[in-house]
Parts: sequence; C-alpha cells; structure tokens
Amino acid sequence: MSQLRKDIISGRWVIVSSERSKRPDDFRPAQPAEAKTPEARGFCPFCAGNESKTPPEVFALRADGTRPDEPGWRVRVVPNKFPALNRGPAPARRDNGLITWMDGVGVHEVVIENPDHDLELADLPVDHIRAVLKVFQDRIRSIEEDLHYEYVQIFKNKGKEAGASLSHPHSQIVATPIVPKRIKEEIYGAGRLQRRYKECIFCRIIREETESKERMVFRNDHVCVKVPFAARFPFEMRVLPLRHDAYFSRIRDEELDGLAAALKTVLGRFKAILADPPFNLIIHQGPNPAAHNHSEVDVEKAFHWHMEIIPVLTRVAGFEWGTGFYINPVAPETAALYLREGIPGSGA
Amino acid sequence: MSQLRKDIISGRWVIVSSERSKRPDDFRPAQPAEAKTPEARGFCPFCAGNESKTPPEVFALRADGTRPDEPGWRVRVVPNKFPALNRGPAPARRDNGLITWMDGVGVHEVVIENPDHDLELADLPVDHIRAVLKVFQDRIRSIEEDLHYEYVQIFKNKGKEAGASLSHPHSQIVATPIVPKRIKEEIYGAGRLQRRYKECIFCRIIREETESKERMVFRNDHVCVKVPFAARFPFEMRVLPLRHDAYFSRIRDEELDGLAAALKTVLGRFKAILADPPFNLIIHQGPNPAAHNHSEVDVEKAFHWHMEIIPVLTRVAGFEWGTGFYINPVAPETAALYLREGIPGSGA
Repeated sequence: MSQLRKDIISGRWVIVSSERSKRPDDFRPAQPAEAKTPEARGFCPFCAGNESKTPPEVFALRADGTRPDEPGWRVRVVPNKFPALNRGPAPARRDNGLITWMDGVGVHEVVIENPDHDLELADLPVDHIRAVLKVFQDRIRSIEEDLHYEYVQIFKNKGKEAGASLSHPHSQIVATPIVPKRIKEEIYGAGRLQRRYKECIFCRIIREETESKERMVFRNDHVCVKVPFAARFPFEMRVLPLRHDAYFSRIRDEELDGLAAALKTVLGRFKAILADPPFNLIIHQGPNPAAHNHSEVDVEKAFHWHMEIIPVLTRVAGFEWGTGFYINPVAPETAALYLREGIPGSGA
Repeated sequence: MSQLRKDIISGRWVIVSSERSKRPDDFRPAQPAEAKTPEARGFCPFCAGNESKTPPEVFALRADGTRPDEPGWRVRVVPNKFPALNRGPAPARRDNGLITWMDGVGVHEVVIENPDHDLELADLPVDHIRAVLKVFQDRIRSIEEDLHYEYVQIFKNKGKEAGASLSHPHSQIVATPIVPKRIKEEIYGAGRLQRRYKECIFCRIIREETESKERMVFRNDHVCVKVPFAARFPFEMRVLPLRHDAYFSRIRDEELDGLAAALKTVLGRFKAILADPPFNLIIHQGPNPAAHNHSEVDVEKAFHWHMEIIPVLTRVAGFEWGTGFYINPVAPETAALYLREGIPGSGA
C-alpha cells in the first residue's frame, strides 16, 4: 500500500507510491521501462476490443444490450491499473515525533473518453464531450458518498510532456482523504476576498474581465474562458461558469452543453495556434460537501468551481521551485488575442 | 520592462517577461528558435575566449594581471543577457480594482562556474566548488546592499530538462523586490514549529534524522545531506548546515570547505547511480536581513538555510498542478540507501 506523508514545515502532502516503485535504473535515459510499455509494442489497453486488459470497469456509457468489459461503450471508467492510492476505510493519521503519515487510501480511476485511439477531446462532437463531463459529474457524486474521500480531483494529462503515459485520450480521477494544500489555499484566499468585497471574488473577476475584454477568450450563455491576469504559463486558460456554484458536481444539464461547446472551441484553438500542444486540464471545486464542515470559510458562498487548462510549452526550473514565482514569456493579453482569434502566430 | 503581477486569490506572483517575449510559433515542436541558439551552431558565449559575447562582467575570480572580460578567470559573473528582471529603483506597487502589479525591477545574473565547457560542478576539484560557493556568498551580500531587493534566490538548472538553455555549467541569481510565496510559507511554517518545540525545527530534524540514519545520505563536520521524509521527487536531497544560521550569506570559511566537499560527493552519487541526470539546485535562506523587518516570525531564530537538490526524472502533471500533492515512486528510505552507497541500481 502507498503512504501519504506530510512535510511538516510546508504542510504539503506527498504520496509515496509502492505500486509504481522504481529503482535508479528505471530513470536512466535509455528508458527501457518506457520502451516496454504495451503501447510501444503497438497495443493499447484503452482501445475498444481490449477491455479485458484493464481492471473491470466501474462505470460506462454503453449501447443497449452490450455487457460490461465488452465493446459497445462511448465512455468507460476503470480503476487505474497502477493506482497512486487504493480504496479502503478512512485511514488513521499517525504521528511519531516530527513525522506524520497515513495509509495511502483513496480512489484512482481512469476515464477513457472514447473508444477511438486517435480522437482527442477536441476532435469529438460536442455531445460526446458533454457525455464525458457528465461522467465526471456522476463519478464525483458516487465517490463522495464515502465521506472520508474529502476531495475529488479530476484532471487530464494530454501528451507525454504533460505526464500522460498512454496516448489514448483519457482523464483521471484521484480522491484523497485530505483536502489538498492548493485547494485549501484557494478557498482561504477566496474567503478572505469574499469578506472584503461582499461577493464571490470569481463572480467579480468575471464581471470585470468581461468589461475589459482584453483577456477574454470565449463566452457563451453558460461559461466564459479567459487568460488569468497573472497567468503562470504561456497560453494558460481558465474556464469559469457564469452561474455561481462551488461545485462542478452540481452543474446543470444546460450548463453541460455550454461547457462542452466552450471546451470544443478553446481546445481547438490550442490545436490551431500551438500545433496540438501537450496540456493539463484541471477541475477545481469545493471539498466533499458532506464530509467537509471544519473550514472557517463559507465554501458555498466564497468558492466558484473552475477549470485550469495549461499547455506544456516551457519548463519549470530552479527559480520556480525555489520561489513559487513563475516567469511567463507571453503577456496574458497577447495570449488572449491569439486564442480569441484562433490564428496561428505566423498569420498574425 | 517586465512586469510583476499578483494573483490575488493565491498570493502568487508572476513575472511577465518582455525581454523573452514570444509568439505562438516559437512554441511549435520544430522549435526553430532553439535551433538558432548560438550553442546549436557550435558557439558558447560562456567559454573562455568568448567573454565579449556576454554583457560586461560584474565580478570574477581572475589570475593576477588579467583584465575584466578577458580570459584568465576561474569563476565569472555576468548579467543575464535576457533578464527576467532589470535593476532599477524600488518599484511602486500599483492597484487597479482586482489587479495588482509592479515594474519588473530586480537582478538577474549568471555565475559561470568554470571556463571549461565540459566540466560540471561535480567534476571540479573541491577548492573550485568552494570558490563558486564563495562567489554566491559575495554576490548575495553585494545585491542585498540595495534594500529593495528583498530576496536573493540562487539556483542552478543543469540539463535541458531542468530548464537550462545553455549547457556550459552555470548557476543563476535572481533578486526580487518581494519575498516569494514559497519562502514566506517556509518561514511561517518554521516559525510556528519553533514556537511549538522551543527550538529551530531544522536543528531538531537534523538530530532525529542523524539518530534514525535511514534517510541520511552524507555527513561531515559542517553539513549533512538527507532525503526528506516527504520528498516530492525520486532521489530529491536536502543539504543542511549543522550550525544553525538563517543565512547562507553568513556561512563561515571552514563551513564552505565542508559544503563543497559534500556537494562534490552527493552530485557524484547522482552521476554514479542515475547516469548524470538533469537537476535543479536551490538555496533557501532568509530574506534580505537589512530590508525585511515586518515578519511576525523571528527569522534568525526559526529559519535555517538549506539547499534543495532535485533530479528531473519524473514529470509534474495535472494531479500535482491541481492539488499541490506529489506522487513519488521511490520511497525516500530506498533513495537514501542508493545515494548513501553510491551504487547503481543494477549493482544493488
């Protein structure tokens, strides 16, 4: 079993993963481990027909009359074969002097977004993207029934440089028995600003950015997409729902349509102007609403779910690790202009 | 001029760099910009004889009778040709509604560690490594005379994957007009623990880790090197001075010898067991002692300077960006064992 370990000075938690346990040789440049992946041998466990090569599915959108772990699905959810965390009872927090840890209890699932190896999220029809988002929502609701899963993180790594070990389009779900530091920080910051401005800071940012327009990329009746004023990375985007809600898991059916259409558009812009870059997509929402009742912040009122989309174009290096500062070589207003127009740099 | 921008929710600052300004095409996979670097054409501006290709040196250790910007140096410090921040008067902090920014004032220098393109830090004799460390100390002291440089970050990116754009061995110095978020967090955490334990938490960790031995990599009379209990990355190391001091810039001459010897050894271990991996090296010390007097924490008492050394072996992906959690596939105790013995995985 993996272990969750706490850095007492920073409050950061780390998963020391036993399932993925490696020796120094595994990191040598030749990367024999990588060359030996099934995919490198021309075999993909996520493709239709290969369902028996994953752990049994926990959920799928399937055609009538088809059976679990057989073809006929549109979206399929399976446990990660090499999970960072494993399901189990609420883990006890243990302390021994300066050392704090707990068993690596949690959930780690893979959402296979479609059966076709070569169709990325941006290539799918809007209604299929919508189906993927709906599956995210359903999985969060299901996982949060176990109250000790305090936070459910949904994310997508596209491309090797973004951390994907398989190229078949997929997203991942990790639920942790602790609310992660970054979520706590964001909630705390939003709470402080909510008290200062007497309204949700995200709602206020949406209003001001809509007026100024210079960092806005896309907007429809339900969501807007913008480049943050202090974007860390070139062409980083943030997707925000126009209706205030702390929880993605409460997104309404008509909003799912708007969100799917927005994603289709802006991920298409990445392909157009950045030659299909590797990227990370992250959903931020409040902690498990049933489990989490010990925050000083009124999460419902102060927090506003959103997505971060980060193309992987630059490297995080010593300065960033040392300081938490980032150096962004593309002004957010310039990035927004390109993303809004959808024209490659050479055509501008 | 660059701009420093604040993310109001997280409190994180970002440098929007104008000197490095890029268009979407610069990020396309062909990377024509990269192919056009001088180094790709077989020319290195950091090699002896090419001194005229860098901005004029600000400091150098040179043989008697040699002149600035000519050969004859052992260690040479020059302004970064494409600086993230530029020297200037203390920048005013400006606010406009939700937006906070300031001019990109700061220092960005390069420390060319030796004239020979092919000698990495670990390859140099101990007395040369010591000379490089002494230069770090001198540069910090000199930069901190300008009180508006609140923090001086020294770091080294070795290898392209670690963010180095030139392969000639070098380190970098960036001074910022704000104390970075990560430093504030570390100081705040150390202050909280100092009040709880009535002693410096780093001193206490050194004592406990020395007793338990299982994460200790190296120790001499002046410094120890260990793998942190909650290491984020495989084979990450932390170098700590045995004598409590918040400031690397106050390191004593005999301690420089001990630190140089420790670095020579443990960076050699990286080469032996991990096939000369790319890595980041970061020095953490207190903010400019003359400038910074508005912290609630007694920095002198609670903080303890240290180095983080992180080999770049895994990728930071969506889960890490989303949560601030890290997944480490090598148990710190296992990593310490390999690093302590200096034997490659295949021989273990």
